[in-house]
Amino acid sequence: MKAEIISIGTELLMGYTVNTNTSVLSQKLLDMGIGVYFQQTVGDNENRLLEAIEIAANRSDLIIFTGGIGPTRDDITKFVIAKYFQTELVEDSDQWNKIQTYFSSQDRKLSETDFFQSLTFKNGTSFFNEVGLACGSAIYMTKDKHNQVIIVLPGPPFEMNHMFDHYAKPYIQSIFQKEDAIESSYLNFYGIGEAQVAKELDDLIIQQTNPTIALYAKPKQVTVRLTANAKTKHEAQQINQNLANDIINRIPSAFLGYGQDYLIEHHVIDLLIENNKSLSIAESLTGGLVLESLTNIEGVSKILKGGFVTYSNQAKIELLNIDPQIIEEKSVVSSQVAIAMAENCLEICHSDLALGFTGVAGPDELEGHPVGQVFIALAKKNEATTVIELNISDKPRSIVRLQSKNEGLNLIREYLK
Amino acid sequence: MKAEIISIGTELLMGYTVNTNTSVLSQKLLDMGIGVYFQQTVGDNENRLLEAIEIAANRSDLIIFTGGIGPTRDDITKFVIAKYFQTELVEDSDQWNKIQTYFSSQDRKLSETDFFQSLTFKNGTSFFNEVGLACGSAIYMTKDKHNQVIIVLPGPPFEMNHMFDHYAKPYIQSIFQKEDAIESSYLNFYGIGEAQVAKELDDLIIQQTNPTIALYAKPKQVTVRLTANAKTKHEAQQINQNLANDIINRIPSAFLGYGQDYLIEHHVIDLLIENNKSLSIAESLTGGLVLESLTNIEGVSKILKGGFVTYSNQAKIELLNIDPQIIEEKSVVSSQVAIAMAENCLEICHSDLALGFTGVAGPDELEGHPVGQVFIALAKKNEATTVIELNISDKPRSIVRLQSKNEGLNLIREYLK
Repeated sequence: MKAEIISIGTELLMGYTVNTNTSVLSQKLLDMGIGVYFQQTVGDNENRLLEAIEIAANRSDLIIFTGGIGPTRDDITKFVIAKYFQTELVEDSDQWNKIQTYFSSQDRKLSETDFFQSLTFKNGTSFFNEVGLACGSAIYMTKDKHNQVIIVLPGPPFEMNHMFDHYAKPYIQSIFQKEDAIESSYLNFYGIGEAQVAKELDDLIIQQTNPTIALYAKPKQVTVRLTANAKTKHEAQQINQNLANDIINRIPSAFLGYGQDYLIEHHVIDLLIENNKSLSIAESLTGGLVLESLTNIEGVSKILKGGFVTYSNQAKIELLNIDPQIIEEKSVVSSQVAIAMAENCLEICHSDLALGFTGVAGPDELEGHPVGQVFIALAKKNEATTVIELNISDKPRSIVRLQSKNEGLNLIREYLK
Repeated sequence: MKAEIISIGTELLMGYTVNTNTSVLSQKLLDMGIGVYFQQTVGDNENRLLEAIEIAANRSDLIIFTGGIGPTRDDITKFVIAKYFQTELVEDSDQWNKIQTYFSSQDRKLSETDFFQSLTFKNGTSFFNEVGLACGSAIYMTKDKHNQVIIVLPGPPFEMNHMFDHYAKPYIQSIFQKEDAIESSYLNFYGIGEAQVAKELDDLIIQQTNPTIALYAKPKQVTVRLTANAKTKHEAQQINQNLANDIINRIPSAFLGYGQDYLIEHHVIDLLIENNKSLSIAESLTGGLVLESLTNIEGVSKILKGGFVTYSNQAKIELLNIDPQIIEEKSVVSSQVAIAMAENCLEICHSDLALGFTGVAGPDELEGHPVGQVFIALAKKNEATTVIELNISDKPRSIVRLQSKNEGLNLIREYLK
């Protein structure tokens, strides 16, 4: 079965909005065992949308549209689909009630186009929008003897996600009933390149049938996705687990953990909780990125004591009690300053571990130090502090900061594993 | 002239990589006065890529391909384009030298597919890859009497960006020589909805010819883009400026500033520099997001003293000297704690202004306080502290944090403007 996603919105063609819906939807479909073969984006233009539908209608079995179902005259998605497939749109009375209630609660007047948000395909299935005003809609369509499932979802990512999970997914599952259960498992590896992982798993990749194996590269991290099908969910999971064990055994030192969005942040928090160790952070060039990435994850409060962003020398001296003489003699970009930041942070926060980051994020050099020179120290209660130097050359500011964060967290991983 | 972008990569169809290249390229083209009418994404599959080329070749004048020019057997973009347009690929000797030099410096052995990265269209133009190994390529193509410009760029965003700016952009400009200069200007507004801006500018939007007007919505922010064409660059800029003045005069209190990526962070840093005021930050629920977003911007060191992430009560007490009794009596989620965080942060950092953030990011309630309840205080040297309460209901953790950050920065904007 071939799926296709059509995104509608002139703002996408103008490049002002990044199309995250397409990647999110593609992943969700893949997790259901449905492959996306094409993605198209068109503007709010009837003829070009008709052309996109025509292309998709001639090659895909499941077509998912996102966007263009709001309350303005530009929002033409449902109308154009109905026109192409020669069907009608009718009112979803629940959605229309919600729209009316909303407007009266806001003391606002309804216009004709507001009503359009409650339209749905006649003889189709309406998806109530619980977190917005425009309903989604789905229908079986036939054109030139080719059967298709058409699904229309809202453009705003939060609404699209909610409607897909609660309405579109069960709808798709009920239509494309599968005998087999499909299960995916994600294995994450840190500090190893995609090419190296591919080499280690070469024979498995060549032989793959069930599970299938896919590799994804992220900065400093590789995710291996296993997808198995079997008679039962449990059986599919078991098939994945057997291969997972084999894979992890081939590159055990790089294995981080399981999970689709499992980053080194998750792993470090898990390790700290497991080892009952608390953490504090003193940041300079990373400017809060390390703390932000950790606190983005639920459960971090169990292990994070607190942290400092000491961007200026003065802040390093006043907030972290760094001896001004060290900065004077060794420069603020030095292993000595990183060590002092980590050790003083540990002491002030009464934590078991503390990281200190200093370096040059760019775009300009700092006191003769090149962009990308970074020192990171890990202080430990009652143990010697370790320090590393990075030289991340030819990279923009954002990458220097990101890699520094990852390498700092990796110091904790190396220490605790 | 119609432009089209074709992204190649199975990882895009699997949804594991968000397609940022498409939006970046679309914006860059639009800034050159070239409209993107279609975007397609296909996998590393010859037949489906041929189909995508066929579709584009029949409707677009400029087709830009990104991705699929690396060193693996999956990288088929140049081969398939050459096949479709019945042309040949030849070696770019500069690129081949770079590849060879790189491999010998790394003590690695070259394979046949590494050579493929140096291939370029015969009788076309090669784009040397200064920051990677695979060269780009461009050529005029003719099929069925339809002339097209074909451009192939690498997939990695950093390489794609660099090659577009340094090679593809001048190439496109030389081919599609325009008599007129095209200039864009971006006006940013904060704390006003897209619908409200559209209403205020209704007559201008209806009458628009030169400049054209486009609206883009971001969280809490609206950007108005003006694009004018004229005989000279200066004249085009002047046309934009005249309309910009009119627009700003209609909604002066919401105007943030000019610039394509001008966020409230930029505005607040500009205001602080202008007023010669320093800032420090004490964060709880935002966990470093405010500091990270400020330090992401160059020049922040002029005004940022430093900051604290006091995620736990203990850290609030130890790092910020918050009186434990206030937390005990008023709860950690209270205006009193936000005020104490801001005021103590100001004192410790010797800054002119300080922000304090406390609240519930979710997903769970905290001590009876609902998710989305947030208190933000702005302390000022020798002036009374102000405090606001937010109630951001029904939103995920990331949005609660983001809105809190924006509203906190807006307190500074309101105070200094």
